[in-house]
Amino acid sequence: MARVSSLLSFCFTLFIFFHGYTAQKFPNECQLDQLNALEPTHVLKSEAGRIEIWDHQAPQLRCSGVSFARYIIEAKGLYLPAFYNTAKLSFVAKGHGLMGRVIPGCAETYQDSPLFQPGRGGQYGEGQGQEGRQGQGQEGRHGQGQEGRHGQGQEQGQRQSQSFRDMHQKVEQIRTGDTIATSPGVAQWFYNDGQRPLVIVSVFDLASDQNQLDRNPRPFYLAGNNPEGQVWLQGREQNPQNHIISGFAPEVIAQAWKIDLELAKKIQKPNEKHGNIVRVEGQFSAIRPPLRGQRPQEEEEERRGGEGNGLEETICSARVTENLDDPSNADVYKPQLGYISTLNSYDLPILRFLRLSALRGSIRQNAMVLPQWNANANAVLYVTEGEAQVQVVNDNGDRVFDGQISQGQLLSIPQGFAVVKRATSQRFEWVEFKTNANAQINTLAGRTSVVRGLPLEVVSNGFGISLEEARRVKFNTLETTLTHSSGPISQGRPRVAYA
Amino acid sequence: MARVSSLLSFCFTLFIFFHGYTAQKFPNECQLDQLNALEPTHVLKSEAGRIEIWDHQAPQLRCSGVSFARYIIEAKGLYLPAFYNTAKLSFVAKGHGLMGRVIPGCAETYQDSPLFQPGRGGQYGEGQGQEGRQGQGQEGRHGQGQEGRHGQGQEQGQRQSQSFRDMHQKVEQIRTGDTIATSPGVAQWFYNDGQRPLVIVSVFDLASDQNQLDRNPRPFYLAGNNPEGQVWLQGREQNPQNHIISGFAPEVIAQAWKIDLELAKKIQKPNEKHGNIVRVEGQFSAIRPPLRGQRPQEEEEERRGGEGNGLEETICSARVTENLDDPSNADVYKPQLGYISTLNSYDLPILRFLRLSALRGSIRQNAMVLPQWNANANAVLYVTEGEAQVQVVNDNGDRVFDGQISQGQLLSIPQGFAVVKRATSQRFEWVEFKTNANAQINTLAGRTSVVRGLPLEVVSNGFGISLEEARRVKFNTLETTLTHSSGPISQGRPRVAYA
Amino acid sequence: MARVSSLLSFCFTLFIFFHGYTAQKFPNECQLDQLNALEPTHVLKSEAGRIEIWDHQAPQLRCSGVSFARYIIEAKGLYLPAFYNTAKLSFVAKGHGLMGRVIPGCAETYQDSPLFQPGRGGQYGEGQGQEGRQGQGQEGRHGQGQEGRHGQGQEQGQRQSQSFRDMHQKVEQIRTGDTIATSPGVAQWFYNDGQRPLVIVSVFDLASDQNQLDRNPRPFYLAGNNPEGQVWLQGREQNPQNHIISGFAPEVIAQAWKIDLELAKKIQKPNEKHGNIVRVEGQFSAIRPPLRGQRPQEEEEERRGGEGNGLEETICSARVTENLDDPSNADVYKPQLGYISTLNSYDLPILRFLRLSALRGSIRQNAMVLPQWNANANAVLYVTEGEAQVQVVNDNGDRVFDGQISQGQLLSIPQGFAVVKRATSQRFEWVEFKTNANAQINTLAGRTSVVRGLPLEVVSNGFGISLEEARRVKFNTLETTLTHSSGPISQGRPRVAYA
Repeated sequence: MARVSSLLSFCFTLFIFFHGYTAQKFPNECQLDQLNALEPTHVLKSEAGRIEIWDHQAPQLRCSGVSFARYIIEAKGLYLPAFYNTAKLSFVAKGHGLMGRVIPGCAETYQDSPLFQPGRGGQYGEGQGQEGRQGQGQEGRHGQGQEGRHGQGQEQGQRQSQSFRDMHQKVEQIRTGDTIATSPGVAQWFYNDGQRPLVIVSVFDLASDQNQLDRNPRPFYLAGNNPEGQVWLQGREQNPQNHIISGFAPEVIAQAWKIDLELAKKIQKPNEKHGNIVRVEGQFSAIRPPLRGQRPQEEEEERRGGEGNGLEETICSARVTENLDDPSNADVYKPQLGYISTLNSYDLPILRFLRLSALRGSIRQNAMVLPQWNANANAVLYVTEGEAQVQVVNDNGDRVFDGQISQGQLLSIPQGFAVVKRATSQRFEWVEFKTNANAQINTLAGRTSVVRGLPLEVVSNGFGISLEEARRVKFNTLETTLTHSSGPISQGRPRVAYA
Repeated sequence: MARVSSLLSFCFTLFIFFHGYTAQKFPNECQLDQLNALEPTHVLKSEAGRIEIWDHQAPQLRCSGVSFARYIIEAKGLYLPAFYNTAKLSFVAKGHGLMGRVIPGCAETYQDSPLFQPGRGGQYGEGQGQEGRQGQGQEGRHGQGQEGRHGQGQEQGQRQSQSFRDMHQKVEQIRTGDTIATSPGVAQWFYNDGQRPLVIVSVFDLASDQNQLDRNPRPFYLAGNNPEGQVWLQGREQNPQNHIISGFAPEVIAQAWKIDLELAKKIQKPNEKHGNIVRVEGQFSAIRPPLRGQRPQEEEEERRGGEGNGLEETICSARVTENLDDPSNADVYKPQLGYISTLNSYDLPILRFLRLSALRGSIRQNAMVLPQWNANANAVLYVTEGEAQVQVVNDNGDRVFDGQISQGQLLSIPQGFAVVKRATSQRFEWVEFKTNANAQINTLAGRTSVVRGLPLEVVSNGFGISLEEARRVKFNTLETTLTHSSGPISQGRPRVAYA
Repeated sequence: MARVSSLLSFCFTLFIFFHGYTAQKFPNECQLDQLNALEPTHVLKSEAGRIEIWDHQAPQLRCSGVSFARYIIEAKGLYLPAFYNTAKLSFVAKGHGLMGRVIPGCAETYQDSPLFQPGRGGQYGEGQGQEGRQGQGQEGRHGQGQEGRHGQGQEQGQRQSQSFRDMHQKVEQIRTGDTIATSPGVAQWFYNDGQRPLVIVSVFDLASDQNQLDRNPRPFYLAGNNPEGQVWLQGREQNPQNHIISGFAPEVIAQAWKIDLELAKKIQKPNEKHGNIVRVEGQFSAIRPPLRGQRPQEEEEERRGGEGNGLEETICSARVTENLDDPSNADVYKPQLGYISTLNSYDLPILRFLRLSALRGSIRQNAMVLPQWNANANAVLYVTEGEAQVQVVNDNGDRVFDGQISQGQLLSIPQGFAVVKRATSQRFEWVEFKTNANAQINTLAGRTSVVRGLPLEVVSNGFGISLEEARRVKFNTLETTLTHSSGPISQGRPRVAYA
């Protein structure tokens, strides 16, 4: 009978297990009684960098309907083109580099100048209108360029004289503070042309209509691979991920690209150890414009001109990048305290379609961002530098987070949850991604706060205080967003954030 | 072996239990074979009123994706400011009072007139531009207004002479028939300045994009509390709900509002027995405009002027209220039968963002609202007066409701479900909330009905009747929405609705 | 103890069963490792046709959020008016006929000409403004037209002389290639006035906001019935479905239509064997315009005129139909290969609200549609003629489909999944429905492809090939969408698609 007993206990355990599950069958992902500062749960290593992924099934990210990743691209690292099933908003946390996107149906507006290529200049440009010439292009060049990948450095050096004349879609220089909007299905690549690592963080909006698949982030690789598989997806853990071209029969690729079968097969078998970020040997000579911001005035004029003359209206030339690190463009700027810049669909119209916006903050030690809540958006806050003491209060009035968050950590702040931040290091810098093209905040204190909008009688009766006390609550704080904090904002030991 | 048998039976029960659950794993909340007239399932009592809440997990509300509540605010009761994670549409079912909303970033456009306050007139108005003056404001007034909440009546009487000069956002007078649109995250309060209870019913749209949390209604209190907890949420039943300010450390509040720690602590501990609707002692002297509708012609002109001059375009001045009880504005009006008024985004543009609209009906005994269905919206019907006999037919052609609904009851009418209503009391009055900014109805009978739009041959072949009979079906009824019903619309005893 | 063992094994099975389920509790309907060419799973037989339904709970349709059906209407068959809870996009795969929709509140703009009906001309037209005349219309005609359904042929023959003067909403002629957009809640009927079967396929967008019920297709019948019940819904399998009028009490119908109770009861009991597609005896004389396209030039002018003069702007006159089978309007047209036509919200503005678009393709043997993916939409591909070899690659780079699809089969192609098609019969024709009003595709090869948009260095480093090889990949293929394929696109035996 001992076995029967243990069986009974097993069944009972089973019952409890499922009972717990079914009791939650009405979705309540946002009944969050505790938040944590989150750190990545998965790391995908590549030849020249790594991708760090936050678990999108963690309760607070599920509630916010987003997923999050950090791309660390080493010097000369090339993040190979990939696209996602979701709208994506990225922020360059460190370094600088090049970024390209390929928008369906748009023209290759970046072309090598014919001045430097007297040899066969104009061949491809002219060849474009003449269909049926396929196959001709590769004649006469056979034998050159067969060295494979490791011969490229040498080959590339010869490029100018041999007159490979390339043309491709727009390439942009990116640098710290750039915020980049990417539509679903649009392939994007990054190249680190600096000496330091290029660090980019991205939020993926799983819950918006732009994502028509399920609520999982699904990268589609156009090149490269991921030997560890999509470890953040159940059932894909040890199933290596390949680029989509490798999934077709080699004959398809050979016929589609009009190349020989050997080359098609070679393309379909990328070096398994390289992953999705490869090291570029030799020169990376993609055509690129001068860096934005190096000539701020001209650039500004150019941009305004672009907006005025209708060029902004086509999807091919739509601006997708804005730098949030220039204090002169800040929405809130107090020399003694710091600055806050926001980016919404008024600044970057493409965000209207993507249902995303961003906020960049940089504050000095002991500066406090007055308590506030997001009226119509979920937010995720990523720390790019320093650390801060943060408190978050949920719908029940419970303090669900009270601790430090520091560089590299992520904190989810769902719609309506109230939050206060106070810098506890020399400088605290962060970026917030919000799931609304025009996210609105309400502040609890200050000149544009909710208490200022309430009649004195409401404040007084609401808090059970005198009219004179209510008057102080309403009118004492004249700042709008940032103030100076005279000391720690919690008496007890701050709860240590773990992730 | 008896234990084995019982164990077997236990396991089998377990299996059935989970089998039942998994059999429904494909969502089919709208496979409704029976509707009920619903009554509130939870009551939250407060000092000066109560909030009655319908169970949003009831199948017919789950299908409609909405939640519903009724606020009963007694004379001199103040419903303290709170905001929700959802768009909300409210209807004043009884009484009159004041309503204020605080829209983020908008100015305090309601100010005490300086003519009545010669003493310190202009102080706050002028002080606004000067940051860094914080703390100064409370000097010179210390010692006055320390009597706490129960001394306010007296204090308030002295207010004019002591020249507290208040300024706050717009306050509106509300009265029976007013329909009020509220965006998510926007704090709202109500005050009953009449003698009778002020009764407001509200629908919360859980399923629209405006709600970025899960499908639960989540009130965030800015003041007051709820000792019984959010009883409509699993796991929150006996967890008292506090206002969100109480969730921060007192030091945060003291520093944010620049008040002393004692006052901060006092604010954080509201009287537990008062709940979220408190009784105002003495005068409630918030600045308010004259009542809308008292001077209908001027008001109408003013409103039209407002729409014309562009003021309506800013979110700060956007109109959010419309009265649906004036028969002279009715969409359908028949003196012998009653009237029906609708409110959609053409009338109230903010509804376009909220994805909600409303319909108000008032019909006399034996008047019948011709059978109809909602083409593009779910609806919930709330009875404000009298009673009616109602039949509802689902997609399968089954009569899923056939009974009386009476004052205070709620009936869900999902998209496509056909419904007919017939007043069985002297007067039947109701409000319907619909989950579409421009909900469209189709009628089954009458001059604009679906049968009128069909060719005779389709009607004749569809129903297996002669062309002459089809002609009668199409053309006999000339009314559009309301008709007179000569007797009960069901032979058998009407199924008694329970809730 | 044998029973204990078996019990243990039973419990363990139970555990595995539920473990499997709970392990998938995070929604991942789109983790598709295998696609199938789908065929209908349910057939509803009617007197003059049948409705074939695809299982919307099949994983690949669940992922796409759509449901699919095929209507086969025999000669003289009338598909009785019904409406759905979803937006619907239909394609006429074979035959021609008449189509009518009844849009709520719009006028009956199609009227019998009084010239042919001198007898009682103008009666109904004039009677419209006079409410209270109800009941009068049927006087004086009693005794005629009582023969019931089977006497209609004879009766209809007499119609001109007896001057039934009908008026109804717009009726359109439809023919092969027509794509028809239908809003939720709008009743629609079809009549086959040809000799061959009229075959219409429809996609139902369950996942868009237009559907406010759960994710199940729910037809609401205005006439006819479905004796087998909504077999695609759990719990409705053997529950016969009736038209919604039959669900009301007969007294309601009699009072609403002002007809006698006997006729109401007759209407409520349709012939159970007829189903939802009935055979029209005798003439079907609904008023109809000349066939579109028979006089192409005039029609085109008329259409343009209609767009210019503002008539298009009202919902009553909004165009909902476009023919995709005219190669002269094709977006891609190559005489040797075939053509591709797309229909999006720029062509048919109502699609903007319905969140749907369509693509029609027709290619010759061995023509290949270059590999591509949908950037912002799910797609379902239905084969109207011939067969093709198709490969589909998912996000993981796995080939999830590699086989033939042939006439009558459906293939789901989720957002981002890459697909290549090659005709293997004389002609391959298909229609693709996409869940976005402006679905965008990206091609992997050809002049507007993603590789053309990438710098040579990215292609070279991405695939581990030389710059010269990368140049071939980028520039060899000059076509944009269609190319000639010289042979089978898969080495092994093609995996046979089953359904």
